[in-house]
Amino acid sequence: MRRFLINQGKSLLDNTRRQHHTTRRFLSILPSTSAPVPVPSRAPLVSLSRFLSSTSKMAASDSASSLPVTIDSINPKVLKCEYAVRGEIVNIAQKLQDDLKSNKDAYPFDEIIYCNIGNPQSLGQLPIKFFREVLALCDHTSLLDESETHGLFSTDSIDRAWKILDQIPGRATGAYSHSQGIKGLRDTIAAGMEARDGFPVDPNDIFLTDGASPAIHMMLQLLLSSEKDGILCPIPQYPLYSASIALNGGSLVPYYLDEATGWGLEISDLKKQVEEARSKGIAVRALVVINPGNPTGQVLAEENQRDIVNFCKQEGLVLLADEVYQENVYVSDKKFHSFKKVARSLGYGEKDISLVSFQSISKGYYGECGKRGGYMEVTGFTSDVREQIYKLATVNLCSNISGQILASLVMSPPKPGDDSYDSYIAERDGILTSMARRAKTLEEALNNLEGVTCNRAEGAMYLFPRIDLPQKAIEAAETANTAPDAFYCKRLLNATGIVVVPGSGFGQVPGTWHFRCTILPQEEKIPDIVNRLTEFHKSFMDEFRN
Amino acid sequence: MRRFLINQGKSLLDNTRRQHHTTRRFLSILPSTSAPVPVPSRAPLVSLSRFLSSTSKMAASDSASSLPVTIDSINPKVLKCEYAVRGEIVNIAQKLQDDLKSNKDAYPFDEIIYCNIGNPQSLGQLPIKFFREVLALCDHTSLLDESETHGLFSTDSIDRAWKILDQIPGRATGAYSHSQGIKGLRDTIAAGMEARDGFPVDPNDIFLTDGASPAIHMMLQLLLSSEKDGILCPIPQYPLYSASIALNGGSLVPYYLDEATGWGLEISDLKKQVEEARSKGIAVRALVVINPGNPTGQVLAEENQRDIVNFCKQEGLVLLADEVYQENVYVSDKKFHSFKKVARSLGYGEKDISLVSFQSISKGYYGECGKRGGYMEVTGFTSDVREQIYKLATVNLCSNISGQILASLVMSPPKPGDDSYDSYIAERDGILTSMARRAKTLEEALNNLEGVTCNRAEGAMYLFPRIDLPQKAIEAAETANTAPDAFYCKRLLNATGIVVVPGSGFGQVPGTWHFRCTILPQEEKIPDIVNRLTEFHKSFMDEFRN
Repeated sequence: MRRFLINQGKSLLDNTRRQHHTTRRFLSILPSTSAPVPVPSRAPLVSLSRFLSSTSKMAASDSASSLPVTIDSINPKVLKCEYAVRGEIVNIAQKLQDDLKSNKDAYPFDEIIYCNIGNPQSLGQLPIKFFREVLALCDHTSLLDESETHGLFSTDSIDRAWKILDQIPGRATGAYSHSQGIKGLRDTIAAGMEARDGFPVDPNDIFLTDGASPAIHMMLQLLLSSEKDGILCPIPQYPLYSASIALNGGSLVPYYLDEATGWGLEISDLKKQVEEARSKGIAVRALVVINPGNPTGQVLAEENQRDIVNFCKQEGLVLLADEVYQENVYVSDKKFHSFKKVARSLGYGEKDISLVSFQSISKGYYGECGKRGGYMEVTGFTSDVREQIYKLATVNLCSNISGQILASLVMSPPKPGDDSYDSYIAERDGILTSMARRAKTLEEALNNLEGVTCNRAEGAMYLFPRIDLPQKAIEAAETANTAPDAFYCKRLLNATGIVVVPGSGFGQVPGTWHFRCTILPQEEKIPDIVNRLTEFHKSFMDEFRN
Repeated sequence: MRRFLINQGKSLLDNTRRQHHTTRRFLSILPSTSAPVPVPSRAPLVSLSRFLSSTSKMAASDSASSLPVTIDSINPKVLKCEYAVRGEIVNIAQKLQDDLKSNKDAYPFDEIIYCNIGNPQSLGQLPIKFFREVLALCDHTSLLDESETHGLFSTDSIDRAWKILDQIPGRATGAYSHSQGIKGLRDTIAAGMEARDGFPVDPNDIFLTDGASPAIHMMLQLLLSSEKDGILCPIPQYPLYSASIALNGGSLVPYYLDEATGWGLEISDLKKQVEEARSKGIAVRALVVINPGNPTGQVLAEENQRDIVNFCKQEGLVLLADEVYQENVYVSDKKFHSFKKVARSLGYGEKDISLVSFQSISKGYYGECGKRGGYMEVTGFTSDVREQIYKLATVNLCSNISGQILASLVMSPPKPGDDSYDSYIAERDGILTSMARRAKTLEEALNNLEGVTCNRAEGAMYLFPRIDLPQKAIEAAETANTAPDAFYCKRLLNATGIVVVPGSGFGQVPGTWHFRCTILPQEEKIPDIVNRLTEFHKSFMDEFRN
């Protein structure tokens, strides 16, 4: 029974082809002359029904020809959009996890380890206590009137809750707020950014959103009218950008990060790609830079950032700065600098450069992904364009107030002398130093594998190793109708329970293969993960070595 | 000074023209032969700078010709989109409110009363205690380990928090959840819906979202490929629909609700509009029904609902049922029936009809707008189309967990025998009966005004009175470059501090004028609002009577 189920799972995993479509899309975007893998068009999804039963309902509706909506009648932009971070491999992993409960003996592992997504608390990281104390007090404000509360909560969390409640009109934490977010919280955030950068921040430039994703969608929706509008995106990139560009009907104009120089960003490549896009009639509207990098983990040098800012100025591009990993830097020779600070240091003001910086409470050391808080700072737009951005914000009324409160807290944590300060610092530094150790251990382990090279994770939460796959593995993937890196990742999942995302979901130089793996499993689990990964990789290479 | 400021404000208010554009858009959609008001194209926004200073930065960037993004280069769909509920009049009100702080003597009122939006807690309604207790315990879980907690929280809130935490993988309330929402919470919601309707609900049909708005956007994004795809929407409608249709590049196909029969929905009119749209080459994809109605407040009769379901079945339309006011019914002769229940009662199953029901935690008696919780139940779609809906959900990762928890709580409130039950019932019934009284008082007051007729608010949170504006007022509006109903609403705001939304923001039969007013100000304020409104209306009519 055990062997049967394993083999069944393996065959199911290998036979699927969704990942492949992602590959194809990227290959068609990238200026490549040869696609390394032939891709059949619209191959049917094969017999995944058992494993997909909880998100789709094959039995109920598959033969229902009388239903009005068909896959051919929906918005083709939706069909085109792909989001690998929660794509097919994660769906399979979720089904395996369900199956594990009843069929423990059927698998060579006890649990699924989700290294596919930067979701620290799902892997056991605890929330920062001060933040949650304040949140609870703001949710259930009558606690503030009870004497027992002083025994249960730190004094600074009580003070902070009062301060925040006084910033909310009518202290109504259950009311829609201003569409940009509660003004007093934006003041706090602006002050935190000013302290970080040393340059003034106008709270009215801040738009609070449900995580950074809706802010990114909003800006791309503003900038993209048709496929004749292009956005320069790094390859590899975080697939939210390609997904949102696809949904908004624009064109992704790729520029390559150079793996050989630690995922460096070459201005000459940017220039080349802009010129090529323009020669095809594409108006390049903006440049996306992710710093620290996702999935690549590099932290840009300040000089490189200056070049990028100057490039945007010269070429008339909006700079979309994804800075959600600004607190995740693990190496002493690199430091995070916001693009706003770099631009202002160069002397560029409001009238010189259009710059949007995205921030999130999902990342950092706090990792409050489920609270869906985030914001963007929008500078360098004319007032009529700003009004349109504001209008877009109003259509969804406002972002959730708990996320707004948390966004203000992470930009204004306890200070020396506060009741919570010592425990807060211990929590924060404990998480960040452990992440740095985990990144180092995993990086070294990956570099010890045959045919694998991995740049260091200077920041963010990921490693993005390159795998030199043997020709036989590539052929086997081809036979299984799967991209080679997806083939590897599915095999890895099946053998170890470790979930990673194939490089084809992020884009990569054609003919190279990667995967993205988070550094987030709790530290005590890392040795076991290294062992499982090493053992799997050996046996994979033994099976397919040329 | 006092008189100067009033007049200055009045002139600012009258000179603006945004509302006008809204009118024009609706007029161009509606099958009308004559536009009652000539509209200049692209008239500049006039001297609102003092009143708009906190959301736009005229001084900094207006003359900045070197910035890359101009109003002519942004996505024209964004320009086309309008959202009157948070439109120009609300912006002006916010500025007036700020100005009131320092210039109390300049205005004939002490406060701004926001009747523009269904936002109960902003007007003083308190949250339901049980819900907030559970939320606080889930936010700050270590409270559950403290003995003092039993003195501070009800026993059923503690039990419920444990139950919910056990439903969340790893009890991690700070982790991204499944993209459809936490499975255990969906189970609870499904059970609540089953109890309501008496028909089975599959938890995997439920998609939890940050309020109902993102769910509505998601479905419209799926269905709309171009302006050749149309969505049947009621006129008057909630402007989220027109905004989202504009952003997604589709066509709004209007059908009129009949004011004379209490905002009845005539199948014959639906049929006529579908045929007319089809004759123009528009593929009508879906029918939006808002029940109880927004802005109109009617509750559909079950027979009418059956006709609507049959119509959708016959015409091959997706039925998009906006049921966010399902708990807000104020009259004993009407009752809320979900469209799902009506469809199933008619014998239509999964294979027969495509039906999406939207629900929100912002409305009901709880009014937790700021928590941004909601969901849709998606039934009657083929598995491949469902996969695309799921993919759209994954792109934003998941909705906020506090909103998810609240969505489960409102569908599973305390039961007889629970510690919180009596206080919960008292809170719930207190709010609902007060809302019913407020609706009645305001309706009667409106019907007492010269030239005003107002249907009863059977449900939802709004009244939508019709004003028979004198010709002289229409001409004055024309001179002021403003739609007549917007002219009236701005005058009302200026004279009383009461914020309502002009009917032109929702659509109305050409040549008729309305405004939407919520029933939400706290009950003790209603007499004063009635007085202010009555006094204003008298003086307005005296000024403009033919």
